[in-house]
Amino acid sequence: MLLSQYFLPTLKEQPLEAQIVSHGLMLRSGMIKQQAAGIYSWLPLGLKVLKNIENIIRFNMNAVGAVELLMPCVQPSNLWLESGRFNDYGKEMLKFQDRHDNNLLFGPTNEEMITDIFRSNIKSYKDLPKNLYQIQWKFRDEIRPRFGIMRGREFLMKDAYSFDIDYAGAIRSYNRMYTAYMHSFRDLGVSVVPVAADNGVIGGDLSHEFHIVADIGESTLYYDKVFNLLAEDLVGDIEELKTLYAAADDKHDPVLCPLSANELCVSKGIEVGHIFHFGTKYSKLMNAFVNDKQGNLVPVEMGSYGIGISRLVAAIIEANHDDRGIVWPEEIAPFKVSILNLNIADTKCSELSNLIYNQLQSMHIDVLYDNTDERAGIKFAIHDLIGSPWQIIIGNKNAANDLVEIKHRATAETEIISVDVAIKKVVGNLNVR
Amino acid sequence: MLLSQYFLPTLKEQPLEAQIVSHGLMLRSGMIKQQAAGIYSWLPLGLKVLKNIENIIRFNMNAVGAVELLMPCVQPSNLWLESGRFNDYGKEMLKFQDRHDNNLLFGPTNEEMITDIFRSNIKSYKDLPKNLYQIQWKFRDEIRPRFGIMRGREFLMKDAYSFDIDYAGAIRSYNRMYTAYMHSFRDLGVSVVPVAADNGVIGGDLSHEFHIVADIGESTLYYDKVFNLLAEDLVGDIEELKTLYAAADDKHDPVLCPLSANELCVSKGIEVGHIFHFGTKYSKLMNAFVNDKQGNLVPVEMGSYGIGISRLVAAIIEANHDDRGIVWPEEIAPFKVSILNLNIADTKCSELSNLIYNQLQSMHIDVLYDNTDERAGIKFAIHDLIGSPWQIIIGNKNAANDLVEIKHRATAETEIISVDVAIKKVVGNLNVR
Repeated sequence: MLLSQYFLPTLKEQPLEAQIVSHGLMLRSGMIKQQAAGIYSWLPLGLKVLKNIENIIRFNMNAVGAVELLMPCVQPSNLWLESGRFNDYGKEMLKFQDRHDNNLLFGPTNEEMITDIFRSNIKSYKDLPKNLYQIQWKFRDEIRPRFGIMRGREFLMKDAYSFDIDYAGAIRSYNRMYTAYMHSFRDLGVSVVPVAADNGVIGGDLSHEFHIVADIGESTLYYDKVFNLLAEDLVGDIEELKTLYAAADDKHDPVLCPLSANELCVSKGIEVGHIFHFGTKYSKLMNAFVNDKQGNLVPVEMGSYGIGISRLVAAIIEANHDDRGIVWPEEIAPFKVSILNLNIADTKCSELSNLIYNQLQSMHIDVLYDNTDERAGIKFAIHDLIGSPWQIIIGNKNAANDLVEIKHRATAETEIISVDVAIKKVVGNLNVR
Repeated sequence: MLLSQYFLPTLKEQPLEAQIVSHGLMLRSGMIKQQAAGIYSWLPLGLKVLKNIENIIRFNMNAVGAVELLMPCVQPSNLWLESGRFNDYGKEMLKFQDRHDNNLLFGPTNEEMITDIFRSNIKSYKDLPKNLYQIQWKFRDEIRPRFGIMRGREFLMKDAYSFDIDYAGAIRSYNRMYTAYMHSFRDLGVSVVPVAADNGVIGGDLSHEFHIVADIGESTLYYDKVFNLLAEDLVGDIEELKTLYAAADDKHDPVLCPLSANELCVSKGIEVGHIFHFGTKYSKLMNAFVNDKQGNLVPVEMGSYGIGISRLVAAIIEANHDDRGIVWPEEIAPFKVSILNLNIADTKCSELSNLIYNQLQSMHIDVLYDNTDERAGIKFAIHDLIGSPWQIIIGNKNAANDLVEIKHRATAETEIISVDVAIKKVVGNLNVR
């Protein structure tokens, strides 16, 4: 992408309304624009991050046999009257009437509708287990939307729903999703702590929250320091993970905690995922029964599994930034490489820049070529701010000697090398295209 | 995808509520489920088609330098008060209040919000031209939603907006989008007739509608028969295309029409795209001014460009079906190949089916393997219904001789050949993966 053709409205100053780092950085880097309290447009840079996260989560959902569908934003009230949540949900549910005075709402979650889809189509244990998921915008009318998209009203969520013939099957589905969640967060380049959780309004008896450790988190986490060292091979061993101590403040009990002081980590955490087994709550209320092997009609066992995709963007920034801007994990960086042509009037600079740009593009690497006539200092600031993992900087003096500078955003290490070596080095160090 | 793991709730009978062919076929093939009048869930098969269409359109938008962003579904009323459309839009606009009694609405279109994004960030001719687009769900509260997703209330649309410093630039942007539209429809495997159109409520002086020719269309089209023969190389020559006669009933004038009776085609058409140049209407009303080269503040020239993505699914089915079901253009088919294992209890049938399935998957071909224990007749009916362009059919007798049957859905031609030849032939005939 040529920066001259792109739409990247960056800001030099921290906007006054930004209360947390990620909010400020997302506004400054031109990722989002507020349209109303808690309601945002995702500008091109922000949308790219959102899509990258979506694709990683989609890959991991598909890998465990979950099947994607898409429910509408607007839901009829009747399903919620069946479940009893139409009035229980309170003012967070955005309700309205259409021109014929039918009661509608903007879906805050989808247990009711997916149960309706299930009961309309699946009647036998032979068609189970099933796991259906969607990636869709939700609306919760928060009383005080704040912290940018961290606590917004319109937000993007992956929500999955499992259906099993019995409790044993439901627990297998639950564990499969627990694993898929650990794999998703690993692939996103973030480390999370899964803590046992209360089920809150959804109800049921097995539930975990996934938190990203970050100073501005709303909960305090108490957990085994092993989670900080979590290696990829550990991710697979659910049973071992589940034996590790991890609890949020509401569940932590210093007396019961088996960890010694130097084994225990205490940090703030941002909740980015939540999985529930809630059994037959909705299937009984909404008449979602299936025939079991013996021909008996039994209520289907269900679970639901959410990941806050838009919130993840902010949470990842909270955990990955420095005083110059965002330091994206490579996996979700909107651009993997920035090319900074420091002198577009110089033929040699432009020639080398174009060469590198074309070569990276032909390798399908997401690259942003800064071909604007801004001065060097501004370019450095912009590309540090938007956090591309690698910068390739082309200035007059180096270019005259057929050299360019590469800079690793996270470490700020730089090197002056030939074009070929620069491309090899950057591409060789990128795990993700 | 293994059919046993998938979610494909097909119906044997035509549902009573289906008034047009595409509506019936989408319900029967398990693509959609109605949740309220004009509001649908997109089940897995339907969602795949929607995504395929999305990706083709996205590719063609990016190819002409349009940049993708995403605006929220829920909009504040204030922008619409500025443009004067909050009250003008009528009952088709779904309006509501949040818990603090702020006036909100579910966006039916986005001229106002994109103008707001533009004016907040772009101040100079140096940053023009720009073309910003999104693919997002809209809501129009139709008084009588009908024909399934053809005239639904919540619908998916690609909407693009161009910004230019002057009229000449705006016309270049308009023509670029006209070309991108012709390319998009070509890549979708459908032929369209672009007709000059009234601008209706959006206002302005240059506008075309793109119609798919189909019997159930709402407008009557009068057009040069050359459009029926439209070859790919003609697509590029906008000026030539624009000289061809094409008009919908409201604009057609038999006296002015230059075509002889045997040059003139008269058909019903379904509108699937609409492009407008509307000049400075919104920029003046909403104060979107930029500095021109001379330093004068001038209102930016705008155009808007829509494609009804969800509606396209239905329109394409109207133009591509037979009495057995859907005949997908290969480009957007949810699965390119169906594998029908007619006897899953037979070792040889399953061995060959698995072999073919694994091989096609390793080539990244979207394949549905029917590994259910349904009988042959039901499998034939289901895969004809869902319209995969190719079927590979594995039955006992052929399998015993290491043979399989391939069937081309569109022509119903079949051939009994070896596994290797079958794979080669199917893959060789697929233009799209």
